[in-house]
Amino acid sequence: MDKEDGKKLPSKEIGIGLLGLGVIGSEVASTLINSSEELEKKVGLPIKLSGVLVKNIEKVRSLNIPKNLLTTDRSVIINNPKIHILVEVIGGTTIAASAVREALQAGIHVITANKELVAKFGSELHDLASANGVAFHYEAAVGGGIPLVATLNRALVASRVTTLRAIINGTTNYILSEMAKNKLSFSKAIKQAQDLGYAEPDPTSDIDGSDAAFKLAILTGIAFDSPINYNDIYKEGIVDLAPNDFVYADELGYSIKLLAIAKRQDDDSIDARVHPVLLNKDTPLAKVDGVLNAIEVSGDLIGQVLLYGEGAGAQPTTNSILSDLVEIARDLSLDNVAIHSHQNEQKHNLYPSNQITVRYYIRMLVSDEPGVMSKITQVLAQKTISIASVIQRETSASNKLAEVVIMTHKAIENELHESITELKKVIGVKDVATVIRLEE
Amino acid sequence: MDKEDGKKLPSKEIGIGLLGLGVIGSEVASTLINSSEELEKKVGLPIKLSGVLVKNIEKVRSLNIPKNLLTTDRSVIINNPKIHILVEVIGGTTIAASAVREALQAGIHVITANKELVAKFGSELHDLASANGVAFHYEAAVGGGIPLVATLNRALVASRVTTLRAIINGTTNYILSEMAKNKLSFSKAIKQAQDLGYAEPDPTSDIDGSDAAFKLAILTGIAFDSPINYNDIYKEGIVDLAPNDFVYADELGYSIKLLAIAKRQDDDSIDARVHPVLLNKDTPLAKVDGVLNAIEVSGDLIGQVLLYGEGAGAQPTTNSILSDLVEIARDLSLDNVAIHSHQNEQKHNLYPSNQITVRYYIRMLVSDEPGVMSKITQVLAQKTISIASVIQRETSASNKLAEVVIMTHKAIENELHESITELKKVIGVKDVATVIRLEE
Repeated sequence: MDKEDGKKLPSKEIGIGLLGLGVIGSEVASTLINSSEELEKKVGLPIKLSGVLVKNIEKVRSLNIPKNLLTTDRSVIINNPKIHILVEVIGGTTIAASAVREALQAGIHVITANKELVAKFGSELHDLASANGVAFHYEAAVGGGIPLVATLNRALVASRVTTLRAIINGTTNYILSEMAKNKLSFSKAIKQAQDLGYAEPDPTSDIDGSDAAFKLAILTGIAFDSPINYNDIYKEGIVDLAPNDFVYADELGYSIKLLAIAKRQDDDSIDARVHPVLLNKDTPLAKVDGVLNAIEVSGDLIGQVLLYGEGAGAQPTTNSILSDLVEIARDLSLDNVAIHSHQNEQKHNLYPSNQITVRYYIRMLVSDEPGVMSKITQVLAQKTISIASVIQRETSASNKLAEVVIMTHKAIENELHESITELKKVIGVKDVATVIRLEE
Repeated sequence: MDKEDGKKLPSKEIGIGLLGLGVIGSEVASTLINSSEELEKKVGLPIKLSGVLVKNIEKVRSLNIPKNLLTTDRSVIINNPKIHILVEVIGGTTIAASAVREALQAGIHVITANKELVAKFGSELHDLASANGVAFHYEAAVGGGIPLVATLNRALVASRVTTLRAIINGTTNYILSEMAKNKLSFSKAIKQAQDLGYAEPDPTSDIDGSDAAFKLAILTGIAFDSPINYNDIYKEGIVDLAPNDFVYADELGYSIKLLAIAKRQDDDSIDARVHPVLLNKDTPLAKVDGVLNAIEVSGDLIGQVLLYGEGAGAQPTTNSILSDLVEIARDLSLDNVAIHSHQNEQKHNLYPSNQITVRYYIRMLVSDEPGVMSKITQVLAQKTISIASVIQRETSASNKLAEVVIMTHKAIENELHESITELKKVIGVKDVATVIRLEE
């Protein structure tokens, strides 16, 4: 495999550098070591783990890894001329961003499982990879073992994506499924998720929608071939949902899901947002329960395609990393090293989220007195928000409160918000408890 | 883009030859002509339709295509030095097989949408492509616009597939959905499918399971990295299913689906078959209704992934062809022309279908007389087939017949068949109407 044209190519084997030896790093390392024969068959050259960045070399590890491969100094890995591919699984963006930049600049191909890194620095790192003629792959950053990035990148190459809708946070989907199925409160459901290992001790980034927004930024970037600023994505978590919302939703024929949505609004702008939605029960996405992830892509030629599977876990994530690795390594072994760089990348603006037009579910607590409903409908009418249906139910005789659920026809988000502010001022309206957008 | 190393590469543009100008051929041609600018941006070189094989040059076509591109002689296309990629959409295997062979031998990359060709000659054509250093791609041959081949090929590269289960014939899935939902008879359901254009005037290859078996042969070949002989795949169609079967299935908690199944049985053999199954209603595949297709892949690392979408139609199919085309064209434009050839291809045997062990649903018509059930249970006991549950129901008072549905525990197919033969001899058993395997 020695090349005569002077290109820096692996002559006998392909060296891998690994940043991080946590749960996923250990799984990657053990696969590289234990499945080396299989990998060599697939690639055509031996794959060799040549260096691992760790915090503490002396830490006792269950994984049997030669100590001379471990280092606490990342420059040892990046300056190692025998390392051709770097796998970054430390997470966070402080060390990871610098390390990945240095690697790309040194002509090393990079694979990362770090969604925050790709969501925040993806565009810059793509450009850097392009400029240095190396690959920057991140299948493992979204959707665990589901090949979302490869599918979007490769198969949708000829189709123009119009809509992407995804359940890409297993923790929140588990919580919502439990609240719907077993009528749990939010706090009980999250406790249960933590007990089962489906939620972190600090679940903030899951339940406030950040994690889903990271992933949406990545997927939107690919699907619409446009860099998206993560910070501009509108996001809303699931903490305000109450058991009663699931009861009403069910009665009205809907499931409640935390959805990541990206829609082509016009040639210049994309409507991208993460928030809970009411979704018709018959929609395939509405049937995705528990910790599973699913993404639905619609395009002009492709129609609608849904991918569905385990969105997290060390093994599925490792599988995605290894798929990226084998792809790059095959190209290296074949001397197919030219990297296709985007030529049609177009910067889209994000459509202002307060301008979207959807239907709304509004749950209110009101005094069970004559005239209150009349005042509510008046407020909505003033904002030209028309009512599609109403459910009114007594809560308890003692406090004389009634629960009112209104489904509106389509309204502009901005005007809906203004009307909610007005509704809260109506005498007799004790609380506007929940507002959920309907996704059609 | 002129290369100095003497390789035959497109210098200014990439030429496409098209075999066939039917519904899909026309869609491909019109996209190549109308979206040439977009394609060039994606590929890096212009893509030019340079020749089209048709039966009749003079035929009036709605597509506005320069007449000088049309030919009735395929050698004109294959010998054209400006054609780098051939798209075969004539169907059948007579002309298609010869033409594809000739093209591969002439160093032309081939893309086909022809499932029968790939199912029957895939292994040979793969070898031929490999020997000539060109690509042989067929995403469009299975699952319309759903990127099944790419997903299996690329993302499962690191995972070992254990099971593949798929609904890959939209016609039969539509018929079964209608029989279940609207209690239609088989003949009414097929008539309706024909009226809606979901079934051919001669629907034989759909309803007898052949079409699904072609596709299963292709998918199994990729998923298990092993050539599969199409003719050895056990197949059974849907013609024997009656409306009552759907009523009982529903009562028992199952949907009836025509499933294509491939399971790793042991290191050497794969259990591959196409037949109707009872599928637990909660299984994601059981919820796939109408003309949609879905494939579920399970692997050691990947867990379970489901892909779901439109399995047919000119536009989704064209999208798959163009995805293959852009992939090859990009590599050509980058001089990345080395083709990865399989090194670990292993020939698996097909596991004998009469040795599989599953649960069965058996529907019988019996005389409503004392002692018949006792004889039935005796016959089954002799073959050590144990009964899990029984439903017995009067059909009509006049003919004194009762309908008996038996769910067995797991049994070996061979012994089940023998017991059915015995059951038919039992006095009082008028008919063993339906036998359906349970897929767990």
